[in-house]
Amino acid sequence: MSAPHGGIAYPNGFRAAGVLAEIKAGSTKLDCALVVSDTPATLAGMFTTNVMKSPPVTWNQGVCANGAARAVFINSGNANAATGEAGRRDVATESEWLASELGVGAQEICICSTGVIGVPLPMDRIHGGIRDSVAALSEDGGHDAALAIMTTDTVPKEAGVEVELECGKIRIGAMAKGSGMISPDMATMICVFTTDAAIEAPVLSAMLREAVDVSFHQICVDNDLSTSDTVLVLANGQGSAISEGTEDCKIFQRAFTELCQHMAKAIVKDGEGATKFVEIRVTGTGCNDDARSIARALGHSQLCKTAFFGQDPNWGRFACAAGYAGVDFDPSHLKIQLNDLILTEGGLVADYEEAAAAAIMHEPQFTIGISVGEGPGRAVFWTSDLSHEYVSINADYRT
Amino acid sequence: MSAPHGGIAYPNGFRAAGVLAEIKAGSTKLDCALVVSDTPATLAGMFTTNVMKSPPVTWNQGVCANGAARAVFINSGNANAATGEAGRRDVATESEWLASELGVGAQEICICSTGVIGVPLPMDRIHGGIRDSVAALSEDGGHDAALAIMTTDTVPKEAGVEVELECGKIRIGAMAKGSGMISPDMATMICVFTTDAAIEAPVLSAMLREAVDVSFHQICVDNDLSTSDTVLVLANGQGSAISEGTEDCKIFQRAFTELCQHMAKAIVKDGEGATKFVEIRVTGTGCNDDARSIARALGHSQLCKTAFFGQDPNWGRFACAAGYAGVDFDPSHLKIQLNDLILTEGGLVADYEEAAAAAIMHEPQFTIGISVGEGPGRAVFWTSDLSHEYVSINADYRT
Repeated sequence: MSAPHGGIAYPNGFRAAGVLAEIKAGSTKLDCALVVSDTPATLAGMFTTNVMKSPPVTWNQGVCANGAARAVFINSGNANAATGEAGRRDVATESEWLASELGVGAQEICICSTGVIGVPLPMDRIHGGIRDSVAALSEDGGHDAALAIMTTDTVPKEAGVEVELECGKIRIGAMAKGSGMISPDMATMICVFTTDAAIEAPVLSAMLREAVDVSFHQICVDNDLSTSDTVLVLANGQGSAISEGTEDCKIFQRAFTELCQHMAKAIVKDGEGATKFVEIRVTGTGCNDDARSIARALGHSQLCKTAFFGQDPNWGRFACAAGYAGVDFDPSHLKIQLNDLILTEGGLVADYEEAAAAAIMHEPQFTIGISVGEGPGRAVFWTSDLSHEYVSINADYRT
Repeated sequence: MSAPHGGIAYPNGFRAAGVLAEIKAGSTKLDCALVVSDTPATLAGMFTTNVMKSPPVTWNQGVCANGAARAVFINSGNANAATGEAGRRDVATESEWLASELGVGAQEICICSTGVIGVPLPMDRIHGGIRDSVAALSEDGGHDAALAIMTTDTVPKEAGVEVELECGKIRIGAMAKGSGMISPDMATMICVFTTDAAIEAPVLSAMLREAVDVSFHQICVDNDLSTSDTVLVLANGQGSAISEGTEDCKIFQRAFTELCQHMAKAIVKDGEGATKFVEIRVTGTGCNDDARSIARALGHSQLCKTAFFGQDPNWGRFACAAGYAGVDFDPSHLKIQLNDLILTEGGLVADYEEAAAAAIMHEPQFTIGISVGEGPGRAVFWTSDLSHEYVSINADYRT
């Protein structure tokens, strides 16, 4: 994929805005984002599996069931999570306010919230944020929107691609936040995609599942599954129509998947306290699920992640994590690589220069290859390191 | 349980030793431990489920299948893990050397190794360690043995209890190491128990499983399951016989379980970088397994563990971890307590003083209570915090 450009309002017929509503009292950063499609758009979404789903997540699941939306409103500074019946009423009220401003139905509005948990939404300021963001809507508002959804993110995350299809050019735009933390909240990932292609809701939903499975489902920063994780995609049909099973559909799927992977990687790279971006590639298992289990085990392991931070080619920890992933394999077939350097072969330490291995781990980005046999299973996983800064961000910020 | 006293050689008919064999070149700490029963003892063991089991683990599984042993030899400074066929030959050789010194069979010898991974055992020094430890065996040698198995443990961990049974007094002794780390190794837990009770091997094995399930199976420091985890118990029958199903059997089981819990807690308290000991109590699930899943989720969560370190009563993280444990519950039934202080009730923030909650978390030890309903399921889990020191120990020690 060529370097993505553009943002959430890059596709035709979308406008966006980011405004300051002081959702967190005294805040001086943009904290309300709005994305609006000029015409009705089909909609698909995927959400956290956490039992403690926030009211906005439950609301959006209802909107997705209808398969259509006109707008997405997102506030940072308050997650509207663990807020019970009052939180559910607040989401409905937000949707009604925005629907009335836009002249559409409340059931066409998606709502996302990220920030402090267990605190009621300041509805007067939310109301101001909705009015101001509607007034500020523009084709150039994507960047402000990407800024407004940031919490402890250090950079805004947005991208857009133009895809050449047989039926014409279409565009896809994206913005994301994560893996930020707001006291006393947990890391939350929100990602919104827009496209001007015309895609039926069930097809869009299948495309989203396929893309998320090889992007947002194969990343971690701190292993904690948020109450608010949300991925949404809106397709407004201002451009060409993409039908299921066509060559165009495949081309679009490929571009969409690559954009999802780009955004997923961007989240890991901006992970809390992250100093390393590590790709874990597992091969040789009986099936892909087994490969993913091993890749996840390494990606989640505190000992592997502190070794990444310590720039220590500590293959014993990689072998250990592979061994407890719940996948049966013959240890004498284990091969471990750091980029192209073989650290372990046949389950035993290989003949390599410690300095060469250390040099690779001093790079900001490297790949760990794990092979456990001759099977066809393979998987990729992206993770960050576990640094002092991670501990500081998550331990010290209220003290 | 009254405060445990004594150590691994506390029961009648056991002798122990700890000697310096420089398994790690230049080391000046005791690094070879030996425990010997004067008469044949029944044996039971439990081991890591890691696929990458070390050769000593595989060897001990064979010895346990016979249900009898005379001695346990443990070296620190080298894990004899990821050493393949050569590692397996080395364990057999060690057993033969020690068996010949003691005049028993090689199949009656348990061998444990903890330390650096992927490096061949220095067999000449191991041989010296075996000879010297046999020569040093004494009834007072338990403390030296407990010192010799330490790696980055900050304190030796040993205990012993005397239990009054209907059939007479019996003793149980214990020593453990963990959760230490040796470059480039992973945390390893080894715990050995001795008793002078006479217990048939299958009964001993059942007792061990019952005790481990509510002790070593409900702790974590860093979530990484070692290649070497080993728990062994030897019963030499110098004292009274305990038959299955008797009242004495129940009394012994209770004392043994309490001793296992004492040792398990000691390992968590000495966890790498630990500044907090946290007990997590979950109630109200449909079954105990579900309660344990929720307790484990909190005990493993990086976000909860950094909150413990930060002394931050961040109940949103506790609720979030409970929510992703894979257990279905109604969020509106969630109740969270810090010791006796209610933080969350009915899924919503309770009316409590932030200062009172913070004061509890400033203690070195506290309990988090999670209730999710009216079900009979309950579980306890012990964990430590995730501190800067943990990151330093595991990232910086080779740089």
